[in-house]
Amino acid sequence: MKVVNQVLPALLLICASSIISPAPAQVPTTVAAPSQLQLMPIPASVQLQSGRLPITDAFSIVTRGYADDRLRGSIARMTRRLAGRTVITLPFDLAADESSATLVVQCERGGSSVPSLNEDESYSLEVTDKQARLVAPTIVGAMRGLETFLQLVQGDRNGYYLPAVRIQDQPRFAWRGLLIDTGRHYQPPEVLKRNLDAMAAVKLNVFHWHLTEDQGFRVESKKFPKLHLMGSDGLYYTQDQVREIIAYAADRGIRVLPEFDIPGHSTSWLVGYPELGSAPGPFKIERGAGIFEPALDPTRDQTYKFLDAFLGEMAALFPDAYMHIGGDENEGKQWDRNPRIQAFMKEKGIKDNHALQAYFNQQVLKILQKHGKKMIGWEEILHPDLPKDAVIHSWRGPASLAEAAKKGYNGILSAGYYIDLMFPASQHYLADPLPANSALTAEEAKHVMGGEATMWGEWVSPETIDSRIWPRTAAIAERLWSPRTVVDVEDMYRRLTVISRQLEELGLTHERNYPVMLRRLANSENTEPLRTLVSVAEPVKEYHRYQMRPQTMLSPLTGLVDAARPDSDEARRFAAMVEGFLSDAPRYRLNRSDLRESFTSWRDAGTALGPMIDRAPALQEARPLATNLSDVAIAGLEAIEYLSTGNAASSEWRVAQLAKLDEAAKPKAALELVIIPSVRKLVIAAAEPPRSQ
Amino acid sequence: MKVVNQVLPALLLICASSIISPAPAQVPTTVAAPSQLQLMPIPASVQLQSGRLPITDAFSIVTRGYADDRLRGSIARMTRRLAGRTVITLPFDLAADESSATLVVQCERGGSSVPSLNEDESYSLEVTDKQARLVAPTIVGAMRGLETFLQLVQGDRNGYYLPAVRIQDQPRFAWRGLLIDTGRHYQPPEVLKRNLDAMAAVKLNVFHWHLTEDQGFRVESKKFPKLHLMGSDGLYYTQDQVREIIAYAADRGIRVLPEFDIPGHSTSWLVGYPELGSAPGPFKIERGAGIFEPALDPTRDQTYKFLDAFLGEMAALFPDAYMHIGGDENEGKQWDRNPRIQAFMKEKGIKDNHALQAYFNQQVLKILQKHGKKMIGWEEILHPDLPKDAVIHSWRGPASLAEAAKKGYNGILSAGYYIDLMFPASQHYLADPLPANSALTAEEAKHVMGGEATMWGEWVSPETIDSRIWPRTAAIAERLWSPRTVVDVEDMYRRLTVISRQLEELGLTHERNYPVMLRRLANSENTEPLRTLVSVAEPVKEYHRYQMRPQTMLSPLTGLVDAARPDSDEARRFAAMVEGFLSDAPRYRLNRSDLRESFTSWRDAGTALGPMIDRAPALQEARPLATNLSDVAIAGLEAIEYLSTGNAASSEWRVAQLAKLDEAAKPKAALELVIIPSVRKLVIAAAEPPRSQ
Repeated sequence: MKVVNQVLPALLLICASSIISPAPAQVPTTVAAPSQLQLMPIPASVQLQSGRLPITDAFSIVTRGYADDRLRGSIARMTRRLAGRTVITLPFDLAADESSATLVVQCERGGSSVPSLNEDESYSLEVTDKQARLVAPTIVGAMRGLETFLQLVQGDRNGYYLPAVRIQDQPRFAWRGLLIDTGRHYQPPEVLKRNLDAMAAVKLNVFHWHLTEDQGFRVESKKFPKLHLMGSDGLYYTQDQVREIIAYAADRGIRVLPEFDIPGHSTSWLVGYPELGSAPGPFKIERGAGIFEPALDPTRDQTYKFLDAFLGEMAALFPDAYMHIGGDENEGKQWDRNPRIQAFMKEKGIKDNHALQAYFNQQVLKILQKHGKKMIGWEEILHPDLPKDAVIHSWRGPASLAEAAKKGYNGILSAGYYIDLMFPASQHYLADPLPANSALTAEEAKHVMGGEATMWGEWVSPETIDSRIWPRTAAIAERLWSPRTVVDVEDMYRRLTVISRQLEELGLTHERNYPVMLRRLANSENTEPLRTLVSVAEPVKEYHRYQMRPQTMLSPLTGLVDAARPDSDEARRFAAMVEGFLSDAPRYRLNRSDLRESFTSWRDAGTALGPMIDRAPALQEARPLATNLSDVAIAGLEAIEYLSTGNAASSEWRVAQLAKLDEAAKPKAALELVIIPSVRKLVIAAAEPPRSQ
Repeated sequence: MKVVNQVLPALLLICASSIISPAPAQVPTTVAAPSQLQLMPIPASVQLQSGRLPITDAFSIVTRGYADDRLRGSIARMTRRLAGRTVITLPFDLAADESSATLVVQCERGGSSVPSLNEDESYSLEVTDKQARLVAPTIVGAMRGLETFLQLVQGDRNGYYLPAVRIQDQPRFAWRGLLIDTGRHYQPPEVLKRNLDAMAAVKLNVFHWHLTEDQGFRVESKKFPKLHLMGSDGLYYTQDQVREIIAYAADRGIRVLPEFDIPGHSTSWLVGYPELGSAPGPFKIERGAGIFEPALDPTRDQTYKFLDAFLGEMAALFPDAYMHIGGDENEGKQWDRNPRIQAFMKEKGIKDNHALQAYFNQQVLKILQKHGKKMIGWEEILHPDLPKDAVIHSWRGPASLAEAAKKGYNGILSAGYYIDLMFPASQHYLADPLPANSALTAEEAKHVMGGEATMWGEWVSPETIDSRIWPRTAAIAERLWSPRTVVDVEDMYRRLTVISRQLEELGLTHERNYPVMLRRLANSENTEPLRTLVSVAEPVKEYHRYQMRPQTMLSPLTGLVDAARPDSDEARRFAAMVEGFLSDAPRYRLNRSDLRESFTSWRDAGTALGPMIDRAPALQEARPLATNLSDVAIAGLEAIEYLSTGNAASSEWRVAQLAKLDEAAKPKAALELVIIPSVRKLVIAAAEPPRSQ
């Protein structure tokens, strides 16, 4: 499933407009997090009170009302994280005495035992200087509140505490998901588990498990064992492991939505069962990236018998009410070339491949219904015959979601949330499933159920995947949970830094693997110049990586582009410094010495990288980047000298510098130096006639 | 199992003497690794040749002779690591053509399917500029050689390559183990797996799985489920998981030796089965650290019936020929107080608790023999009635091992390898199971089978355990594999740094979790001053941590002492600089500017830590250390000024500085500043009359 590139700018326009639109009257005015707080997602309503609740070794928790193992497990995990963070030995068992308890957790009922779309996830949390009280109608609501409780913990000279606060909270959207594509690259169960922990920490509630792809069939089928045995290189989830993941997710109030992508994206199915294909075969597991031709044959009864048995087996394995059947990117080339399929279409009056796929979907729908599942598929499945309880998964943008909603279909959005495309968190943050300028009626708007971040798996390994998902997905989680008017990007980044660190408590590796990868690349403990370079570089956006640096699914994902991260803090910090510098008077020039220091460290790093690259062949591809970094730094240093003296640079200088920057701006090793736009501003400003003081 | 403190210095004396003893004539002269190589453990024989074998994307491997899934799995894993390190897409499948293959792996036979003590682990590896050829009698030998192959890979401007070399290798000792105590703190299967990978990387071959303790019973018993259900807080290994770990270890040529520690160390058994105890109970899982009273009742038939059934179940689960029955540290206090036990002893003529435990061991021995297992236990089990195929596990030192050997018992050494005691790698490295000055005859010496590093689990969590085991255990692995004459500590550290980095490829977290822990403690991305402090601090040695900073098994292991590591690189580097400085003439003074830089950074870090500690209550306990660090740094700065000018400091100054250093040398927060001995040298030297130039 790929986003069409040209859709993105349009989407951004829509979203950007929502920033400046005034908040509708019905939105509470307390949606912005008070700056002392570091909550993410921001609750629906937060009222800071005076006072604080200390966290000491006298800490205790009691439950009131309904309680079960799921709740007790959540409390125990929360307590363990609190203990880890504060280094205080906290009690292992629940307390009995309500009046002396630090935290009272009060649930009305259990809620559904299998997490469901309709679960009430609301909660209220009141913290006074005596006690915190978390009240929720369901266990899942209490889980959400426990995460907020933990996010409220702060510390100062007097110890750890929670500020007194009143929170009333519930999600804006009921469907808040993360897709992990385990088809293209297998991810071991522990990777999924730690990501489920992270999802729960930011209140996401759907793990969309993309289980089958051209490059791998990842789930054990007892009925058709050749699916996983021949389609996975041995890298698949046993049914026991699947059950364990589902239970792990349920313990965190997270639904597990399995996806079996058909009729396209199905090469790995055909390795063991070529008779299902629309071409004769044999088939091999696909090792490349892209869109491939193999597709199930939609014209044969045998195909549906197989799907009935297989999807029936999966329907029993996965308890969620929904099953995702993919349905995307089938170009039908094998159908075009198969005379029997062509004859079938003629006979049935099926006019084109889209109609043939609609026919296929109709048959699959009946199978799902037989097995008690509702269908969800990528937006290609939208068709007049589609029943109204099917869900449309939009990858083209909110417009197609709105179109489906007008027709009465529920839908979720993934356009704008393609985290594999390496865009910054700010961009995802402003994509809204239901933008302020939406033309939908209130009734139609109810069909927009939420969205999902999509971690497509071409270029992620167990070592790197967390760094592609986090922390950016926390910003998406906030978009899907918090009121629409929560759109302050700067404040989002402030809180994202904190949340990112807290995710590390759960074992997430998005930060910790970074220095490991640099050490391996440098074959040295001393990685400082390399780190300096990579801190201002980002992997190229969209799908350019594959074009620039072709690899297969068997290639090691240990290169510099794999170590680099998609949303450079350093570049953002630098851009802000440049803005400050340029807006100040020449003789004062805010941030001048900091900028000089940055440029100097870049220039020196560029130089120091030379011998480092000589010793580490894996870094060869970084050599031109090292030169570029020095060049950019020197241009920057010269620019700030001009701008500090108030003497304008010559236009020759300007032209020469901009040419250097243009050269440096060309991606190399599938990386781009993301500081260049800011340096360009300095160079242009340096050659402008001085402003009057 | 605890080492008796006063034994250590004696052990060190013995070992230190082995450094200066001349190499016996039969030892090959090529045992030292050529300095271009980074092998660990050093092979029995290495001869560098001229030429190099390039590693390119044309890389391929063929097998000749015997091959099986175990071998193919090892080759695939090695290839994946090689690809990861070089960022080259290497072929997924074995090649067919021998002449063009980069590496030929030639095995004679499979060897035993369950790794055994008698396995032939030898191999030879010849690398020319055309091809590498690994020849081994068994698959396990080939695995050892594949690790050496990978350690030979180097890189320069011309790319990756192996130097041409001839290696003939086999282990000095057949038993080379690592004990992981999962009783006191549970370690999830993935922790064990990554440590098994690391063990294989340094050619260790026994995973000693300490499964039961006062603080936890960690293995599922289907016959006696109350053992794990009531004795583990739910933190136990299912039998499926045990089988998976055993298979994982076998795939890496590693034996799994289970330990069920009886009759002492057994509180967790008695929680579910108090009738086995020597006191009436009830019993609770022990939360403290130390030696506890509960012990199995050795006088009742019921005890042995239980053990027969339980150990029989375990004997079927664990395929290794040996079973470890612990047997240590039972002080018999419950026996002393139990009139029925006292009467039993009188009746049977059992004169003391040691004899009663010998009686117990005799019964257990019969049970093990019945189930086809050989017995191994801590040295307390040594007794005239012990059969000669039992193995003595020494924790008191090589002397007791030698004593057992003289009596004809096989034995292994753990004294000197207690990695939980936080001693530096150099100390463990020089402990030798069979020291040069051993008085054993050649025949007796054969009874010394090897040794085991012991990772006792009081103060390790899944987050910290790797940093306690690695990299130091690689030095122990070398001691147990390489010729006795390999004792160059400086060269060991040179190679240890490289191996440590390579272990990270396997997912080991000994380095990567360190900055994570500092960030959490500081509650900030900026941890620089904290890192500066911790880089020159080590956890207190031996058992002082618990005395200084009492905790329970339920306490979070996230404090500064948990983040700190046992063998400060920085302190070692600093000590070497000081030696160089002091041995040089005042006017030149080698390392002067580096020393000044170190002292300045320490002084400034001490100052910067103040406000950082204010914001992070978890760091409160570090406050006096911060002050000490500044004090020490200032003393050092003053000392090098005196020493550089050639003017002697006053004795008042000297006395004042030494008093400051004494104060700073007192451990705080269970940490000690390990740079102080070197600073003390500077201070003393600064007040000495100048040497004549």
